[in-house]
Amino acid sequence: MFRGDGKEIISKFLQECNVMVKMLKRAKIFHYIDQHYDEHLSKLQELVRQPSISAENRGIRECAELVRSYFRDLGCKNPRLVETSGFPVVYGHYDAGAERTIIAYFMYDTQPVDDPGWKVPPLEGKVVNVAPFGGCLVARGAINTKGELRAFLNACESILAAGEEIPVNLMLVAEGEEELGSRHFPEFVEEYEGELKKADAVFFPYADQNQKGKVVNYLGVKGIVYFELELEGKAWGYGPTAFDIHGSNKAWVDSPAWRLIQALSTMTTRDGNKVLIDGFYENALPPNKEDAALLANLEKTFDEDSAKDLMKVERFIKDTHGREALLNYLYSPSLNINGIWGGYTGPGTKTVLPHKITVKVDVRLVPNMQVEEVIPKIRAHLNKHGFTEIKIVELEEGYGWAKTSVNEPAAQAVIKTYQEFGYNPEIWPHLAGSAPFCMFNREPLNLPFVIGGLGHGGRPHAPNEYIVVEEGGPTGGLRTLEKSYVTILDNLSRMS
Amino acid sequence: MFRGDGKEIISKFLQECNVMVKMLKRAKIFHYIDQHYDEHLSKLQELVRQPSISAENRGIRECAELVRSYFRDLGCKNPRLVETSGFPVVYGHYDAGAERTIIAYFMYDTQPVDDPGWKVPPLEGKVVNVAPFGGCLVARGAINTKGELRAFLNACESILAAGEEIPVNLMLVAEGEEELGSRHFPEFVEEYEGELKKADAVFFPYADQNQKGKVVNYLGVKGIVYFELELEGKAWGYGPTAFDIHGSNKAWVDSPAWRLIQALSTMTTRDGNKVLIDGFYENALPPNKEDAALLANLEKTFDEDSAKDLMKVERFIKDTHGREALLNYLYSPSLNINGIWGGYTGPGTKTVLPHKITVKVDVRLVPNMQVEEVIPKIRAHLNKHGFTEIKIVELEEGYGWAKTSVNEPAAQAVIKTYQEFGYNPEIWPHLAGSAPFCMFNREPLNLPFVIGGLGHGGRPHAPNEYIVVEEGGPTGGLRTLEKSYVTILDNLSRMS
Repeated sequence: MFRGDGKEIISKFLQECNVMVKMLKRAKIFHYIDQHYDEHLSKLQELVRQPSISAENRGIRECAELVRSYFRDLGCKNPRLVETSGFPVVYGHYDAGAERTIIAYFMYDTQPVDDPGWKVPPLEGKVVNVAPFGGCLVARGAINTKGELRAFLNACESILAAGEEIPVNLMLVAEGEEELGSRHFPEFVEEYEGELKKADAVFFPYADQNQKGKVVNYLGVKGIVYFELELEGKAWGYGPTAFDIHGSNKAWVDSPAWRLIQALSTMTTRDGNKVLIDGFYENALPPNKEDAALLANLEKTFDEDSAKDLMKVERFIKDTHGREALLNYLYSPSLNINGIWGGYTGPGTKTVLPHKITVKVDVRLVPNMQVEEVIPKIRAHLNKHGFTEIKIVELEEGYGWAKTSVNEPAAQAVIKTYQEFGYNPEIWPHLAGSAPFCMFNREPLNLPFVIGGLGHGGRPHAPNEYIVVEEGGPTGGLRTLEKSYVTILDNLSRMS
Repeated sequence: MFRGDGKEIISKFLQECNVMVKMLKRAKIFHYIDQHYDEHLSKLQELVRQPSISAENRGIRECAELVRSYFRDLGCKNPRLVETSGFPVVYGHYDAGAERTIIAYFMYDTQPVDDPGWKVPPLEGKVVNVAPFGGCLVARGAINTKGELRAFLNACESILAAGEEIPVNLMLVAEGEEELGSRHFPEFVEEYEGELKKADAVFFPYADQNQKGKVVNYLGVKGIVYFELELEGKAWGYGPTAFDIHGSNKAWVDSPAWRLIQALSTMTTRDGNKVLIDGFYENALPPNKEDAALLANLEKTFDEDSAKDLMKVERFIKDTHGREALLNYLYSPSLNINGIWGGYTGPGTKTVLPHKITVKVDVRLVPNMQVEEVIPKIRAHLNKHGFTEIKIVELEEGYGWAKTSVNEPAAQAVIKTYQEFGYNPEIWPHLAGSAPFCMFNREPLNLPFVIGGLGHGGRPHAPNEYIVVEEGGPTGGLRTLEKSYVTILDNLSRMS
């Protein structure tokens, strides 16, 4: 088994010993996790039962206090609510006396719960059987991302409870405005810049398995700009200026509703897919060299059917498949209508000519688009087509895209974790979704940002949002998720 | 004073006596009305406090029973609820032993009360000072048209209480689905055709004064067809098919919202005013000879500023004025968006790609358009532009336009009433609004249909709907309204 000269043999022997020690330590922690499933699950339930709907300012501060108590319980000294112009950031520093320091980024806010179709109350933390996964926690925030926040803390507590030390120092950062576009998070970064800069990498605990158990890891996100377009008769000078009037007056009075619809219709092709705003695509880059290599691998393993099934989508745009669909998903900026409303929207046949109509729109930014270019281009488009009366209401400042190289040691630490669990992860250059990761991996911090975790959930921003908690289905449950966080921290502590 | 031969003198003397007797009778009834204002007002309040929102099936049957009790109190024998496939029609027959028989048409249903901006609760029947009118009843149904229903019954009761007899037999007909397009009213007409045909005319008690006190009388109405256009991903085969998905997926998934907006945009010119549906205008006639004569007079007295002020509209379409604006109002069919909704419409920045979007649309029909032509033309337009996946949901069957000639004796009886009160009425060939009058003045009944009453109200289908109840402002109050109904009935009894 140990061949070669004495020095070599001893070196190999010591290496093996190290691996064995590592494995024994992990086994001890994993055993603890297995033994404390019920207790750990109840902590997830506690967190999702605390509403924290940032769009409605519902339960935000109560949830921030709950998260602060979690940081205190873990052993952070003086965990605090860092006030911003908006909702506070919860910050805790755990000093393990370790060489490496990792920022763990969390969000404690969630989307609203008004969407119809929930089969269980969205704030009760019910565990129900969801085929084919087995027991799942079905609740708002289950996967996006209270489930992971609490599972990560369960993992850290398990390391300590098993008599070991957390292998890295942790800067725990939980923000309360992620679903509002993290608009005031930069205030926190500015205030804590000196401290945050000491970290080696940022880790966002997530659940990377798709519904079949395949591990899918994203190395970045698109950026986002979110705004409302609004037309009121008062601003226009035509149409009803103060209230909705009797619908029969359309014969001689202008309609802000028709007018906004006409304006919107100039923004896309007939199928709603190609954006006709001047310069909309001009800064969108095709895949760079590293992305092209990742994409070539991704094409081979991309499970199109599962992606569609999860969203209940029968066809992609223009019936595209494989590489073409992936190119749209990854490298196409999008102009999306999130919602539209005006006039009478109840049952029956009330006849009114609405005085106001509003549409919620977001633009997703791909490399190398800039946040600052979006609103001026929308404005210029509206003006060019004569719609100067339509108002753009910026709901957030927006934030840019963010990408971490697959060659970053932090990215490799996550990938190594998956391999140690027996998975060959499917690596995506980035995700079409958005998160404020650019606030970490651009100026002033310039830190690598990685996402990871072995588990599964679905329906973020939709009814019946879930995270798998029981083991035995096609994906990991809560125990596996926590074990993967333990391992990721261990591998992050060893990155060179 | 009385010149001529003996026969002539006696004849003139008897005529004068008749006029004096008529005036004395009216004076007695008017005095009774003046003495019972508080009691009469409280009856209006009682009626508006009983919800009867047909679109929501709220309070309908309770209101029908209340109206039935009114008919019984007046002295109708066996007033009844005539059941239809929808809400019942309340029917009462009052036999005065008179030569003439008049159908009094009422509606006991109202619009919903969900519109924001009410300064008093819409179902409490509050009387508040509204400048420049003085005391007004501000409530849903105040002017459209519970106020008039009850005022008309107050007038009839006052005739009897003053010791006189109602000068015509009355067929009292109150329907509960006017705001739903009177969809089941034809069932009642069919069942009671034999009886209804015995009537000489139909009278709809209304309040014909504008906010300055000018009397404005409408000889007809436009027709209406009301429907929803709906696009669901499921029907389309593209886009999310089951629920709203994460908004970032717009990059590779189609949007029913963009698609419906594109479809809608093909239906009008850029300003939303000219309808581009093939054949939409082909049956719309210009004013006929009688209308042209009425229009020539109308132009002279039309108070454009008041009309605009009432609606809080600064400009008509294309800045039209006078005759041009009137031609639009009266002879232009309209395609109106009553409401539109889809996706997330709450506060903040929830990002979803909606799976469904709906728009409520109505078409107003002018002579000589037919109800039956509307939906096929909309369908053909959508199909022609490739929007075969968009569903048309017909919310009601619709009903046609209706017009009564100014030369009809019933119309002249109403006009004579205004003249007796010292007003020179402004006669409109018809109204842009719709009511199911065609069910009376077309086959099988073929009865002249007239609207009338001296009073004022506003904001039908809008918050703070009101009817003036106190006297002393620029318009008549409740006492004048009731007196005008007394006089109209008298003049209808004398029509030749």
